[in-house]
Amino acid sequence: MKKLINNPRSVVAESLQGFEIAHRDLVKVHLDPDYVIRRDAPVRGKVALVSGGGSGHEPLHSGYVGAGMLTAAVPGAVFTSPTPDQILPAIVESDSGSGVLLIVKNYTGDILNFETAAELAGVEGIDIRTVVVNDDVAVEDSTYTAGRRGVAGTVLVEKIAGGSAERGDDLAKVTEVAERVNANVRSMGVALAPCTVPHAGEPSFTLADDEIEMGVGIHGEPGRHRVPMTNADSITDQLMEPVLSDLGITSSDKVLLFVNGMGGTPLSELYIVYRRAAQILAERGVSVERSLVGNYITALEMEGASVTVLRLDDELTQLWDSPVKTPALRWGE
Amino acid sequence: MKKLINNPRSVVAESLQGFEIAHRDLVKVHLDPDYVIRRDAPVRGKVALVSGGGSGHEPLHSGYVGAGMLTAAVPGAVFTSPTPDQILPAIVESDSGSGVLLIVKNYTGDILNFETAAELAGVEGIDIRTVVVNDDVAVEDSTYTAGRRGVAGTVLVEKIAGGSAERGDDLAKVTEVAERVNANVRSMGVALAPCTVPHAGEPSFTLADDEIEMGVGIHGEPGRHRVPMTNADSITDQLMEPVLSDLGITSSDKVLLFVNGMGGTPLSELYIVYRRAAQILAERGVSVERSLVGNYITALEMEGASVTVLRLDDELTQLWDSPVKTPALRWGE
Repeated sequence: MKKLINNPRSVVAESLQGFEIAHRDLVKVHLDPDYVIRRDAPVRGKVALVSGGGSGHEPLHSGYVGAGMLTAAVPGAVFTSPTPDQILPAIVESDSGSGVLLIVKNYTGDILNFETAAELAGVEGIDIRTVVVNDDVAVEDSTYTAGRRGVAGTVLVEKIAGGSAERGDDLAKVTEVAERVNANVRSMGVALAPCTVPHAGEPSFTLADDEIEMGVGIHGEPGRHRVPMTNADSITDQLMEPVLSDLGITSSDKVLLFVNGMGGTPLSELYIVYRRAAQILAERGVSVERSLVGNYITALEMEGASVTVLRLDDELTQLWDSPVKTPALRWGE
Repeated sequence: MKKLINNPRSVVAESLQGFEIAHRDLVKVHLDPDYVIRRDAPVRGKVALVSGGGSGHEPLHSGYVGAGMLTAAVPGAVFTSPTPDQILPAIVESDSGSGVLLIVKNYTGDILNFETAAELAGVEGIDIRTVVVNDDVAVEDSTYTAGRRGVAGTVLVEKIAGGSAERGDDLAKVTEVAERVNANVRSMGVALAPCTVPHAGEPSFTLADDEIEMGVGIHGEPGRHRVPMTNADSITDQLMEPVLSDLGITSSDKVLLFVNGMGGTPLSELYIVYRRAAQILAERGVSVERSLVGNYITALEMEGASVTVLRLDDELTQLWDSPVKTPALRWGE
């Protein structure tokens, strides 16, 4: 294992220290317990959004803290849920009195720990709701999950619900928007090569030179099946079919098409996948209204990609376009 | 070799096709000859900036086409210079009558081909200047270069000269700004693992499990020496010392600190490198005024990183902050 780290145990803390210096115009970093919070939090009169989960998926979630997206992000150890002791102070410091929406990816540990923190925050009188993201069509249950996993759709939930909170919507409305995004977004991923968790020191799985993991999770957990390596168009076809089928896409739909890199795949290859995905949608008469291509939710240096399709309506499109100013996503200021 | 491609010969064209669909609000893509150009080019009354070079360094250069940065980018085959036949039409279509600045990384093939295109453009009556970027302190001459290589500093030249052109500076002024950035920027990189060029099919070099290439180029070409693998802080020390020494940094300096990923290194590791680089500057009393951390000039999926330090003055800082709206760099709109 060769990594640009000093010690497997200090990876998250040292990375957060660097993150804070680089982005101190936007965020504050609290260490021990670790969380990242908007510099101007709490924001008076606005619903707060708090998310989090295991580290190793950067820029998710810390990179999305800032105006128009998350109020706070709570990073656990690599691929490990954050604890209630971390989540609770992030909630308390984020709340302006307008309430807090928790955005939780559907993994058993995350669900339990955010639920515990939510109960404790409720006792402190904070108005709190939770939306669970479960956009991955690959498998129904998996290594760390009862039900579908939450993957790249999380980025879209955070951006669009963040836009709703930023324009001053109340907690019920922001929650409804987040749930609407989750209900209309589907994803599926593929791995060509594994990643190595620093404290494990060995690749999290192995693949033969001629096979790929179709439907892989963002921790390298198994997907649907291993298939022989093939070309980008064929791989994209295999990813798009279950996504579109599950979404029940029709020719009148307008969508956001998101091709995400898992960390170790060149951007040029993501555009080749995007090209085929856009062709498939065009053939079905579906209008691609918005796009996102890049490494937005990763699995360390895993080689692979995922495709995500979000069915848009006018309000979701408007909230997607609304200004955002975070370390990793920024436009329309 | 497992890559998300269809055919090694169609990688650049198919990637550009995807790029165009994803970013058609910002750019037009011309195929055969290949170049990417601002949707609104030529921009009346503004100097045009044209850059380019081998593909495989994405998002450089195509990702930087848009308001406040490049007018056009000319991508060659992977790690191969674009031809004069590509560069010339990009120049002609970019020119609004206010002249064109070519931003060329210092590689022999790029120099020759941009020079030829510049001569042909001159014959057509276009006012044309060239700035050659050579920020890499690792080696004096190298595989593809007489003199120092142009690496990550190129991103900063393109952004800051782009700001100068966007505010309406004339060609002499935009050229002076670009040269001032190049004179005040230094970089050095390290590779932990190689990349594989699609049409080669094999890694471009090999490294033992316990060694790294210090001073590597963005094509995987050799640097200063191979050294035993060590921790991130020690690697960062070895990168920063020659950069700061060559720059003649002093405690009154204000700088932009840029930690760039080579493509296959997790963002969290880049922040660990950034942390140490910022510590080194703080220890020397140097003020880090601006930061950039991420995959901005890559070598396909190479694992590694580079550090870049730019000595700022008030005008360069102001131009760095000025609005930019490109597929890969966007703020302050």
